[in-house]
Amino acid sequence: MRKEFRDLASTEEAARVADDLTPQRSVERVDLVGARGRTLAEDVKASVDVPGFDRSLMDGYAVRAEDTYGAGEAEPATLTVVGSVSAGEPPEVEVGEAEAAEIATGAPIPEGADAVVPVERTETDGNTVDVRKAVAPADSVMFAGSDVASGEVALRAGTTLSQREIGLAAAVGSETLPVYASPRVGVVSTGDELVRPGGALGEGQIHDVNTFSVAASVEDAGGEAVVYDHVGDDYEAMVDTMREASSDCDIVLSSGSTSASDEDVVYRVIEQEGELLLHGVALKPGRPTVFGKLDGTPFVGLPGNPISALSVFRVFVEGMLRDAAGGGEDERLRRSARVADEVRVEGGRTRLLPVGLVEDGDGTTLAYSVDKGSGATTSLTRADGIVNVEPSTNYIDEGELVEVELFGGATPPALLGAGERDGFLDSALKQHKDDVRWLPTGSVAGAQRLRDGVADVAAIGLSQEALDALGVDEAVRIRGYDRRVGYVGDPEGDVFGVLPDGYALRELFDERNPESETRVFRSERGAANAVASGKVDSAFVGEDVALDLDAGFEPSGWSSVDILVAEDRRDKDGVVAFLNSLRGAEEPDGYRVPDEAGEPLRG
Amino acid sequence: MRKEFRDLASTEEAARVADDLTPQRSVERVDLVGARGRTLAEDVKASVDVPGFDRSLMDGYAVRAEDTYGAGEAEPATLTVVGSVSAGEPPEVEVGEAEAAEIATGAPIPEGADAVVPVERTETDGNTVDVRKAVAPADSVMFAGSDVASGEVALRAGTTLSQREIGLAAAVGSETLPVYASPRVGVVSTGDELVRPGGALGEGQIHDVNTFSVAASVEDAGGEAVVYDHVGDDYEAMVDTMREASSDCDIVLSSGSTSASDEDVVYRVIEQEGELLLHGVALKPGRPTVFGKLDGTPFVGLPGNPISALSVFRVFVEGMLRDAAGGGEDERLRRSARVADEVRVEGGRTRLLPVGLVEDGDGTTLAYSVDKGSGATTSLTRADGIVNVEPSTNYIDEGELVEVELFGGATPPALLGAGERDGFLDSALKQHKDDVRWLPTGSVAGAQRLRDGVADVAAIGLSQEALDALGVDEAVRIRGYDRRVGYVGDPEGDVFGVLPDGYALRELFDERNPESETRVFRSERGAANAVASGKVDSAFVGEDVALDLDAGFEPSGWSSVDILVAEDRRDKDGVVAFLNSLRGAEEPDGYRVPDEAGEPLRG
Repeated sequence: MRKEFRDLASTEEAARVADDLTPQRSVERVDLVGARGRTLAEDVKASVDVPGFDRSLMDGYAVRAEDTYGAGEAEPATLTVVGSVSAGEPPEVEVGEAEAAEIATGAPIPEGADAVVPVERTETDGNTVDVRKAVAPADSVMFAGSDVASGEVALRAGTTLSQREIGLAAAVGSETLPVYASPRVGVVSTGDELVRPGGALGEGQIHDVNTFSVAASVEDAGGEAVVYDHVGDDYEAMVDTMREASSDCDIVLSSGSTSASDEDVVYRVIEQEGELLLHGVALKPGRPTVFGKLDGTPFVGLPGNPISALSVFRVFVEGMLRDAAGGGEDERLRRSARVADEVRVEGGRTRLLPVGLVEDGDGTTLAYSVDKGSGATTSLTRADGIVNVEPSTNYIDEGELVEVELFGGATPPALLGAGERDGFLDSALKQHKDDVRWLPTGSVAGAQRLRDGVADVAAIGLSQEALDALGVDEAVRIRGYDRRVGYVGDPEGDVFGVLPDGYALRELFDERNPESETRVFRSERGAANAVASGKVDSAFVGEDVALDLDAGFEPSGWSSVDILVAEDRRDKDGVVAFLNSLRGAEEPDGYRVPDEAGEPLRG
Repeated sequence: MRKEFRDLASTEEAARVADDLTPQRSVERVDLVGARGRTLAEDVKASVDVPGFDRSLMDGYAVRAEDTYGAGEAEPATLTVVGSVSAGEPPEVEVGEAEAAEIATGAPIPEGADAVVPVERTETDGNTVDVRKAVAPADSVMFAGSDVASGEVALRAGTTLSQREIGLAAAVGSETLPVYASPRVGVVSTGDELVRPGGALGEGQIHDVNTFSVAASVEDAGGEAVVYDHVGDDYEAMVDTMREASSDCDIVLSSGSTSASDEDVVYRVIEQEGELLLHGVALKPGRPTVFGKLDGTPFVGLPGNPISALSVFRVFVEGMLRDAAGGGEDERLRRSARVADEVRVEGGRTRLLPVGLVEDGDGTTLAYSVDKGSGATTSLTRADGIVNVEPSTNYIDEGELVEVELFGGATPPALLGAGERDGFLDSALKQHKDDVRWLPTGSVAGAQRLRDGVADVAAIGLSQEALDALGVDEAVRIRGYDRRVGYVGDPEGDVFGVLPDGYALRELFDERNPESETRVFRSERGAANAVASGKVDSAFVGEDVALDLDAGFEPSGWSSVDILVAEDRRDKDGVVAFLNSLRGAEEPDGYRVPDEAGEPLRG
């Protein structure tokens, strides 16, 4: 029957177990370009002197420095040209008193010469050369072995190899480099409800998300992801797949099916066939995380919720993989941020709080919380990382400094918008080159996000009184555009598909139909789809949505959308670019820009 | 004959030409995991509602919310269990008044139920369940289509795909994604003096560096590097290779052979066989940069010096490749920094100043200049990026804010050391997990680097008077260790191999042999090698170097090395870890730690 997690391990204990489960490092040799981003496993010693000979650093003339003393623009020293030296060839000339040899960059300094005069400071008739600059011995000469001496350590074990270390390795003669092998990471998915993308969904089924987001995270962390066929909830099939993965890979990850219910096959497989090291962590999300071994291979069972799976991966697994690949923490995966508006959390256990990032007008990074347990996959793309909140903390104050553990690739967007989201905005945002994040929260929540210092701009359909009541006082309001709205389906029907409270369309609908029965959808598209599938009789949406669906439309009026810009973000590059994009946007069918629209729409 | 660059283009003009040469974007479909880091070329619309049904967010019991009103820990509501619903299967039960159905996370909500009570708040005997919490309609339920409605745009064209967008794409049913293809970038190397690593060097030859550092940079920027066989300086061979690359690739890069000397074949090939668009930029380094086309394919000829090649790549080519791959600027490739100590530069043209990064005690990023035209490949691994200095600027003040264009993968090291570098330090640094950069500048330059706010710590063999004379006053001096030094080769010989001025060993040598003839080497290893090759009679080095070379050694005394720590960096994590590493280091043969050694060596 159901098993509960009465004894939860602390996150510190779980971290220790994760540390013990870190796969062993192994070493492989790879070619130079393939070594990019990898960690050097052994010292690289120079097999040759670099350079192997005294080398010219310029195109010019090899001379005896003393012959140029006193030379200048006005009084050049005239030397006899005795020949020339090319790069890559042993010199066939010697330079004697009052003589010079033409020399190319990289060519060996000929016997007798001790300096090079750059060509720009000379003039020649072919037989003699006028030198217009005095040089000192060793000028523009790189001595043999002065870069790296043969036998010297050029690169230390443990170095992360960028293009620059690869260049140095080439210089000292390495054709391949010994690097830590990428750990092979088996990714196993489970759950009868999951179907891989591309497959048809049966009733009650959804597409498998974690296999792909986890596999991509594995590769971000320097691992090689090996994705296994989906196995459902069958115990024997799961044992077979997990054993196959354990024998192929350095570590195996699963997601989902880790709760202590009798259907959750993953932890039973580890408990019965392998070694269950830990099940249940005082962590939210991540309580059902499983640590163990199967046939000696480390195993971690991640939770099934996509954002929880990535959060637990970030906290426990990412470091294991980076360590196995020979690297350390990647400091670019952490970022200090100030909390945009206060956060209250339930205490008593560690919380992994998903947050989004935004930069304020001064360039300070702010973090705001996203996804309060909604379970939505769209939250995935709104979170930039997590804040690890101690069990003793219930409250994080606005402005408090927190450390964000970033998800791979996350940076604050150039523009963070909130509020309404419609075809007009889309046509503006499409022209935008920078990275934009838009939270389709509806007008009220959008205005609040802006008021709370989260959003740079908001698209709202609210009266000034409503804004005042929300306490939005540090914003510039720009008259925007109007959108034609109305009904898809039967406006005389009984049940209406509508947006949630706080959306401009919902306010209008409620004014017009105060007594109607409604069903709430997160998007206009969802509401309109529900007409087609018969779940509702009519949906109250924008004309553009109806046009896009090729559905009949009964207009009911215009919904007016204005743009709010946070006072202190007016000069932010992303905001300036957004306002320019709005000005350049053409109104799609179903929209109009009124004559009184403010700068920047009719600037 | 030689051609000079009398008419240099401005960097702005060069940037416009680079912009025009940006390869066309093309689109390809890739699988989900392979889409990581790529840029989405088309909008992705949901092919299904996500979720496709009303879905439980918890393990627990599906109930009619109204049946739980008033329930609590003290007074549970007792409901009849009428069956159970698993994830992935259509429900076979209906929930009526005072009834409940066991339900798993992700399972469809059965007919009649409108909320889920989490299992933790229930107790069951199999027939009935006690519910200890009141729930509201919709609690722990995710409604069909509420995440993404079928037909809605889930991901916008232009989005950079991280693991999170990949997860969302999976959720909406995408099996593959349309992304911009990586531009194919031909990398051609030229110059008779270059030999690929692995090949034997003839007289006057060196290993080819740029092919590998440029190819790795191409891949960093999202391109696919195609490396062609080395072709030397032969015109016809170069034409053949360049035509092959032009026909295979979206853009071709070369390095070296771009100066206006008659041996520089690359620009002649473009001038005679293709279309030379620009040759000569008012830029240092990068003056001989070539832009053009061959058979219609864009071409850029980079300078031959390795750090110059990467600098010009960073300024002109990186953006072209990122643009062709569909992405924008990567903001993580820029970093604001304050100049550590004043920089004076020659004005009149744009300078690309190679800089290293370090963090001060407060976490502020500082930039200091590296590689003043030394031509050394080791400089490659000491530069983190470049500062683009306007032609009108001659002077950058200490503390001035500059924007550093980073080379891929560059971050400030955890510890920046300078001064002496020897076997004892190596044995300490080996234990160090963090990223360390050590500038082997010798004692005097090391102390100056520390004084100037660049180095966190310095290893020095200098008297307190010498330090005072250098103006090093904000540092803690820790008594370190002694190193046995002496002669390899014939101490009675005529010519001695020595380190440059300012190194502890050189000071000692000069005291003992004030009148000797010397030849200067950058490293002890280099000096000792020169004994073996007969270039000098003897070298003055540490005993450990002699032991490593298995060379005879005539001891001459002990060189004393102390550690300086910059006052304001004492609490920096990297410094604390370094001092711990020093304390834990075992002295190699040829070293001793005296009894009077200070904390931390004998703490």
